[in-house]
Amino acid sequence: MTLKNDRFLRALSREPVDVTPVWMMRQAGRYLPEYRATRKQAGDFLALCKTPELACEVTLQPLRRYSFDAAILFSDILTIPDALGQGLYFSEGEGPKFRKIIKTTTDVEHLPEINIASELAYVTDAVSLIRKELNGKVPLIGFSGSPWTLATYMIEGGSSKDFRMVKQFMYDNPEAMHLLLSKLADAVTDYLNAQIRAGAQVVQIFDTWGGVLSASCYASFSLQYMQNIVAKLIKENEGQRVPVILFTKNGGLWLESIADSCCQAIGLDWTINIGEARRRVGDRVALQGNMDPSVLYASPSVIRAEVGNIIHNYGEGSGHVFNLGHGISPGVSPENVKIFVDTVHELSAQYHT
Amino acid sequence: MTLKNDRFLRALSREPVDVTPVWMMRQAGRYLPEYRATRKQAGDFLALCKTPELACEVTLQPLRRYSFDAAILFSDILTIPDALGQGLYFSEGEGPKFRKIIKTTTDVEHLPEINIASELAYVTDAVSLIRKELNGKVPLIGFSGSPWTLATYMIEGGSSKDFRMVKQFMYDNPEAMHLLLSKLADAVTDYLNAQIRAGAQVVQIFDTWGGVLSASCYASFSLQYMQNIVAKLIKENEGQRVPVILFTKNGGLWLESIADSCCQAIGLDWTINIGEARRRVGDRVALQGNMDPSVLYASPSVIRAEVGNIIHNYGEGSGHVFNLGHGISPGVSPENVKIFVDTVHELSAQYHT
Repeated sequence: MTLKNDRFLRALSREPVDVTPVWMMRQAGRYLPEYRATRKQAGDFLALCKTPELACEVTLQPLRRYSFDAAILFSDILTIPDALGQGLYFSEGEGPKFRKIIKTTTDVEHLPEINIASELAYVTDAVSLIRKELNGKVPLIGFSGSPWTLATYMIEGGSSKDFRMVKQFMYDNPEAMHLLLSKLADAVTDYLNAQIRAGAQVVQIFDTWGGVLSASCYASFSLQYMQNIVAKLIKENEGQRVPVILFTKNGGLWLESIADSCCQAIGLDWTINIGEARRRVGDRVALQGNMDPSVLYASPSVIRAEVGNIIHNYGEGSGHVFNLGHGISPGVSPENVKIFVDTVHELSAQYHT
Repeated sequence: MTLKNDRFLRALSREPVDVTPVWMMRQAGRYLPEYRATRKQAGDFLALCKTPELACEVTLQPLRRYSFDAAILFSDILTIPDALGQGLYFSEGEGPKFRKIIKTTTDVEHLPEINIASELAYVTDAVSLIRKELNGKVPLIGFSGSPWTLATYMIEGGSSKDFRMVKQFMYDNPEAMHLLLSKLADAVTDYLNAQIRAGAQVVQIFDTWGGVLSASCYASFSLQYMQNIVAKLIKENEGQRVPVILFTKNGGLWLESIADSCCQAIGLDWTINIGEARRRVGDRVALQGNMDPSVLYASPSVIRAEVGNIIHNYGEGSGHVFNLGHGISPGVSPENVKIFVDTVHELSAQYHT
C-alpha cells in the first residue's frame, strides 16, 4: 500500500521533503480528554495497553485532531520485563513498579526462556490493527525500551532518583549485568522484529536512562546492546527500508558514538542546540527533536518562537524530524499542541526548496 | 598565614603539584556517624547551618578522618532565599521547601532590599571560625547556589521533577525572570564576597539545575548571571588569588562557554570523559571531578579501578582537582571514602613529575 504521507520516512532517509515532518513522543496520552475517556473505559493503564482495540483507538486519537506525520503504537516501554514474569503494575502518582526485583546473579540466570513475540501478541495484534485502520495515512512507529533502561526498572523495582541499586549491581557484578543486558537485547530484538513483521514501518528504542551513566559505562552497558539490536533488526519489509531511531535522554555528549551504531536517526533531548548536533554527526544520520516539552505550557507566541528557533538552528535541507525532547506532559492544553504542529509545517516550508 | 597544604590552590592555578588534590562535594554529611550525632545535637539541619560552632564542627569532621586537600563550609545552597524571607524549611524525605513561593512579577518586585551579608552573618561567622580552627591545614571553600538554581526552588517551592512552574515563568515572563535572576546575582555576589572577606580562599557556585535548560536558555538564564558574579567577585585576598569554580550538573555540552566566563575551574559531573573535557577547554581552566558518586557503593577494587581510570583519562600534569560528579550519597560507608581519597593520592603521583 502506498503511503499518502511519507514525509517522515523521507526525512529519516534524508531525502527531500516539502516541510519538516513532526510527531510527538507520548502523543497519545493524558493531555487528551478522549484518551482519558478510553483509559477509563479500559479500567487502567495496563488494561489499555493489553487490549488491541483500545490501544488502536488511542493511537489514532491524536491523528484525528492534529496533522502529525507519524503514528506511534500506544504501549509501554516495560512490556518485556512484564512478559518475563516480573509483574508490572502502576501505582497512582508513583509510576511503574515491579512485584519481582532482580537482586542476584541467580535471579538473572533464572529469567525464563520464552518466546517474547508470542507472549506479547497483544502488542503485535495492536500493530496490525493500527496499520489496517491507518490505511496508509501516515507511517506507524513501533518501539521498545533499551536493554539498559529495562534493566534499571527490573533492578530498582520502579523509577529511581539515584539508580543506586542498578549501578551497584553493574559495578559489583559486571558479568551478571552483561548477562541480563544480553538477554534483554535478544528479547528487544525479537520484539521489535515481531512489530516490524506486524506492520511497524519505523522503530524507536527509548534509552530513557542511558544518560545517568558515565561515558564509558554508557558505551559498554547501554549503547553496545542497542548497537547489537540494530544489527539484527529486519532491514527491509514490504519493499521499504525500516529505519531505526535511537533516543538516549541526556545523550548529547555521545552523539558521535550513537551515530556509529548504524541507526538511521538519533533522537535528541532539548539540552543540545540541534544545529551543533547536525555539525557533529554530519550526514551520517537524521536527527529527531528537540523542543523542551515545557514550552507547550507557555503562550502561543512563545511556542511559535521556539519552534522557529529550532527550525532555524537545524537549517536548510532534509534530515530533521521535529519532535519534543521528551514525552509531552499530561497538563498541556490540546490547543497548544495544534499550534505546535501547525507551526512546524508552516515555518519549515522555506527551508525546503 | 602559610598553608601547610596548598595542592588544591596550585591545581586550580594549573601549577605543578606532587599528587592530584581531592575533596568531595557534601564531604560533611550524613554518611558520617559523627555528623549525624552533631546534627541530632543541633536539633535539625537548618539549626546546624545557623549555629557557627556546630557548622564549624561538621566542616572539620571529615578532615579528621581523611586526607582531603580542602575543607568546604558546611551550609545550604538555599540560605539566600531564606534571608529574602521565603521561609526555608526541610520536611523529612522531601528535601527543601519554601513557605512563600514566587508566582508573579509583583512577587519579584516586592522581594526585600536587604544587606545580604549582614542577614547571613551566621554563615560568615562560621567561615571565620573554620578558618581559625583549620589553622592553615588546607584551604577553605565558600559557596552559593547559582541564581538560576535558587530561582527554581523559589518558584517551584521546593525540588521538582519537570520544573514546570519555573520554566513556564521563564518562557511567559522573561523580563520578570531576568529581574529575579539579576536580584539573585547581586545577592550571590555580596554573599560570596562576604565569605571571601571572612576567610574563604576559593568559592564554588553550584548550578545544580542549569542542566535542565535548553542550550540557549542556559546561556541567557543561568550562565550569564554566573559570569556577572565572577566579574564582580573579589579577585585577591590576603595576597592570594581567590579562584572561582563553576559547577553545572549536566553541563558537559556547554564547557566551552562556561570556560569563557572567566572562572578558574569547571566542576564536571560523571557523564563526560574528563580527558575529552580537557581537550575541549585546553589550558583555559582547571577541571574538577568527576567520579559517579554511586561508585562509592561498590567494592574497594571497583573504587580503585574507577579512580585510576579518571586519573588516566585526565593524563599528565596539573589542573585537575579530584572530586565526585555530585554530592556523596548518605548511605556510603565511611571506609569506602578512605579508600577513595587515599587511592587518588597514591595513583596520581606518577602523573606529576
